[in-house]
Amino acid sequence: MRIVVLSGGIGGARFLRGLLAAVPTAEITVIGNTGDDITLHGLRICPDLDTVMYTLGGGIHEEQGWGRSGETYAVAEELAGYGAQPQWFGLGDRDLATHILRSQLLAAGTPLSAVTDRLCARWRPGVRLLPMTDDPVETRITIKDGDQLRSVHFQEYWVRLHAKPEPVAVELAGIATAKPAPGVLTAIAEADLVLLAPSNPVVSVGPILAVPGIRAALVDSAAPVVGLSPIVGGAVVRGMADKLLPLIGVPTSASGVALGYGPELLDGWLVDTVDAAEVDQVAVSGIECRAVPLLMRDLPATVAMAQAAVDLAGQVAVA
Amino acid sequence: MRIVVLSGGIGGARFLRGLLAAVPTAEITVIGNTGDDITLHGLRICPDLDTVMYTLGGGIHEEQGWGRSGETYAVAEELAGYGAQPQWFGLGDRDLATHILRSQLLAAGTPLSAVTDRLCARWRPGVRLLPMTDDPVETRITIKDGDQLRSVHFQEYWVRLHAKPEPVAVELAGIATAKPAPGVLTAIAEADLVLLAPSNPVVSVGPILAVPGIRAALVDSAAPVVGLSPIVGGAVVRGMADKLLPLIGVPTSASGVALGYGPELLDGWLVDTVDAAEVDQVAVSGIECRAVPLLMRDLPATVAMAQAAVDLAGQVAVA
Repeated sequence: MRIVVLSGGIGGARFLRGLLAAVPTAEITVIGNTGDDITLHGLRICPDLDTVMYTLGGGIHEEQGWGRSGETYAVAEELAGYGAQPQWFGLGDRDLATHILRSQLLAAGTPLSAVTDRLCARWRPGVRLLPMTDDPVETRITIKDGDQLRSVHFQEYWVRLHAKPEPVAVELAGIATAKPAPGVLTAIAEADLVLLAPSNPVVSVGPILAVPGIRAALVDSAAPVVGLSPIVGGAVVRGMADKLLPLIGVPTSASGVALGYGPELLDGWLVDTVDAAEVDQVAVSGIECRAVPLLMRDLPATVAMAQAAVDLAGQVAVA
Repeated sequence: MRIVVLSGGIGGARFLRGLLAAVPTAEITVIGNTGDDITLHGLRICPDLDTVMYTLGGGIHEEQGWGRSGETYAVAEELAGYGAQPQWFGLGDRDLATHILRSQLLAAGTPLSAVTDRLCARWRPGVRLLPMTDDPVETRITIKDGDQLRSVHFQEYWVRLHAKPEPVAVELAGIATAKPAPGVLTAIAEADLVLLAPSNPVVSVGPILAVPGIRAALVDSAAPVVGLSPIVGGAVVRGMADKLLPLIGVPTSASGVALGYGPELLDGWLVDTVDAAEVDQVAVSGIECRAVPLLMRDLPATVAMAQAAVDLAGQVAVA
């Protein structure tokens, strides 16, 4: 079975761990969000790709959900000693090695997809990890700063400003000319099943779908497309997606996100059992919908979630 | 008193510490060798400039003579985990912050001299530290590799190969088109005294003198030029200069190095007391020569050495 998963960072990575355990013989291709990527201190950082790679490769800081286990911060302390800016993004020493190698390869002209392959050769994540695009795309948030509007990189909004300023708009700079990374469209065309991880619909799955050609390929695909709601009980399970959903006109609800993706894209949708009342609201649009536990409390719970998504896809495909 | 010092790494840096203590009110400009500079993992490393900066700024690993005190190696271990090459150059985490910031600034178009200023703003080395040139110059050693000749970067010859292969030639790639860094020629023109630190004549002081314009400026300068022998008792005090001196036709002796620099450049020369017998051999060429203790055993010994150089310059200037 060939499965394609659209994934952001922490939530997507944990979901993938469950999926790998649920269907260990499946060939899984992950299309990762790169809109969060940022260049700091001259080094190229791909938070979502790295979180997937480290999580599946056994290098993740488990409690934190991002960054490396056993991390130290000698380089960051020294950069601060030089007064080098910015200082709001915590760059660990182990993690930095990834960014140093990536930056060196990118500077030598290696596309990000090939760089990611090179990095994964060490981590052996058990999936094929593809960036959504090799082209630079930058998710920017326009915020209210007093009575001024200001555009900041998503990482600055998220990490530095803790999503506190009122967001006015989200923009994907560079998206119009971005091309799907090599392998992305083929993986979708050859997939038996496509899953949308329970990642942020605005800044994780959204940018992937916005790369010209990807959404159309998913809509055209014969494979069922099944998503898992990142909203449980009307609130985000993790992160701050609720701050951003209004920007794309989507209510903060399990059904709202499904309808935001739309029935032309989604064949199936999983909501949490607490949102069982929303199943009909989704189903009426033509999206098969089931209510199952969607909290990734531990690996067994995550495996069950992944299995439910695979099962729903099977039912949709037969139907 | 304005003093210009031509300096390599460890020996030069330690000498400078003595000089600063000997003449605390002097304005000291250090012209540092950049022929050893190397780009590793995409990061620009300037070993001699950094050794001077760290030594005078209090950040040096005292026993080792290079690199940072309290150093850790998390990044290097991770880079090795990726199989990133080369692995023969020990890059500490603290030290890496310097290279990351330098590389970022260079990539943004900042010349090395301005980058060095920026780094020194933190370390406050008590001297003005100038690279010999902002242009890339690379000291390369042609070695015998079996019955083949092979050209390697000086760092590879020195650090990886421990100067074991037979050297056949030394080359300063890029030197013909290199220009003295901003401030270098002015500092020489305005100097009351120029000192050649007891650094390697072939790969430390040699490259500085080889930057078109620098040697001529020193020869033309009204200021006395006084050097200190890096050879004591017919052997190098530190390093492996004895392996390389034959390449430039200079015998491994205190007098040999002086005559190699030549009387048109040198006004005065200090040899160690064990080489007192060579004083006349130097003096006959027209270079004032004295025998004083030249081993930098501790700070007082180094201060005395520096003071002897300054005193000799005073005598030369009066004569």
